[in-house]
Amino acid sequence: MQNITPFKTKIYYEDVDVGGYCYHSKYLNFCERARSEIFFSKSASPIQNGYHFVVKTLTANYKLPALFGDEIKVYTSIKEFRGASITMFQQILNQDEKIVFEMDIVLVGMLNSKVAKIPQEFKKILNITKR
Amino acid sequence: MQNITPFKTKIYYEDVDVGGYCYHSKYLNFCERARSEIFFSKSASPIQNGYHFVVKTLTANYKLPALFGDEIKVYTSIKEFRGASITMFQQILNQDEKIVFEMDIVLVGMLNSKVAKIPQEFKKILNITKR
Amino acid sequence: MQNITPFKTKIYYEDVDVGGYCYHSKYLNFCERARSEIFFSKSASPIQNGYHFVVKTLTANYKLPALFGDEIKVYTSIKEFRGASITMFQQILNQDEKIVFEMDIVLVGMLNSKVAKIPQEFKKILNITKR
Amino acid sequence: MQNITPFKTKIYYEDVDVGGYCYHSKYLNFCERARSEIFFSKSASPIQNGYHFVVKTLTANYKLPALFGDEIKVYTSIKEFRGASITMFQQILNQDEKIVFEMDIVLVGMLNSKVAKIPQEFKKILNITKR
Repeated sequence: MQNITPFKTKIYYEDVDVGGYCYHSKYLNFCERARSEIFFSKSASPIQNGYHFVVKTLTANYKLPALFGDEIKVYTSIKEFRGASITMFQQILNQDEKIVFEMDIVLVGMLNSKVAKIPQEFKKILNITKR
Repeated sequence: MQNITPFKTKIYYEDVDVGGYCYHSKYLNFCERARSEIFFSKSASPIQNGYHFVVKTLTANYKLPALFGDEIKVYTSIKEFRGASITMFQQILNQDEKIVFEMDIVLVGMLNSKVAKIPQEFKKILNITKR
Repeated sequence: MQNITPFKTKIYYEDVDVGGYCYHSKYLNFCERARSEIFFSKSASPIQNGYHFVVKTLTANYKLPALFGDEIKVYTSIKEFRGASITMFQQILNQDEKIVFEMDIVLVGMLNSKVAKIPQEFKKILNITKR
Repeated sequence: MQNITPFKTKIYYEDVDVGGYCYHSKYLNFCERARSEIFFSKSASPIQNGYHFVVKTLTANYKLPALFGDEIKVYTSIKEFRGASITMFQQILNQDEKIVFEMDIVLVGMLNSKVAKIPQEFKKILNITKR
């Protein structure tokens, strides 16, 4: 689970607020892009036949500010999964390999606005078939 | 057309970048909220039975920077309309009644991914029935 | 602490993603606007002589989706405060008075990039002087 | 001027609104990231000793919608420059090499909140020294 390629981006004008510091909710966006990239990188979509994940809970830890121009990497690992839910741990590092942000996030799979079991294709893409 | 109530908001942390200046694309968002409010204020939605507007072209003029904490007002007037398109003029003023931003925007009505005539209900809401 | 006027906004186009559901990190933005409004509503700025708060940790709970056009209210209460930090509880309700989002957030006061005690002016605005 | 490497990104959840279409102001953000990358790619910052560009005017043309998951490329070329201002032409193409968005944008260089001549270092990075 740990070997998912990190998602890379930079901190642009639109991401920072006064003083050039990354706005606090943007880290969640970067983590979401990283989750979507798990699918995109396998030429798949995170929305398949209407099935998709929504955020249930998250616990975030702001360690260091990311600054304008910083190059960040988002590491994603799967901590746990059950019928319809997945718990991921995501970590953002800057160009100096310092941790700037950490998050535990619980996602729930939905189909037609109802909680629904994770389909086999999703499990394959997320590499959680054998567990 | 000129008498649409202006849409008011403030410039928050998420809107500014380095130095506390409003990020340039955010003015477009404020103008879009103002256009949606024309519908919301009449208990209607800007999406009705799939019909909605998309942006075709826009010409924007940045006059003065809006700063963190500024209270802005978005004025919207309809310059012209034809079968499926509307041209609006939108102006953003700050708390000192100074113009910070101006835009001409051409919107095109869409239904099922195709250009489609503006429905009567939309014309009523936009107050362009009699012209 | 409970009697802070809620901050109101609507869910606009820019806030939603596929299907018309509010994007998960936007709730954090709405909560931040609500915190800034505590200052703005008293004609003060949340940045005074360089002193300002940054987010240290947060725990968020997504209860119900907010949809395009929804009118939401953000309620903010202060749970605890110490020398340089404040813990707030923030709750977002929709027009049907249903809870859509809840968050515990720990903020830390900063001056010149260092943790610094909450100044008296900030305590007054936050109404935490007497405790 | 035409040979600046295009900036690439994808259309993520945060970029789309109802129906999975990219929100209209986001194209401006992608173009801004492309402009910043001209500097970042040369290990430079678009803010040097306080000097930076602000948007003066822009004319945008929406050709085709960009959809969730699309891979886009932003091409930037410099049309004209004078003492303190630069006119750029930016074009966004999707993975099928179709033009989705085009923009003419006029930027003005600022120093200490005043219009100021483009410094030599900026001209070098923008490759406009010899003209």
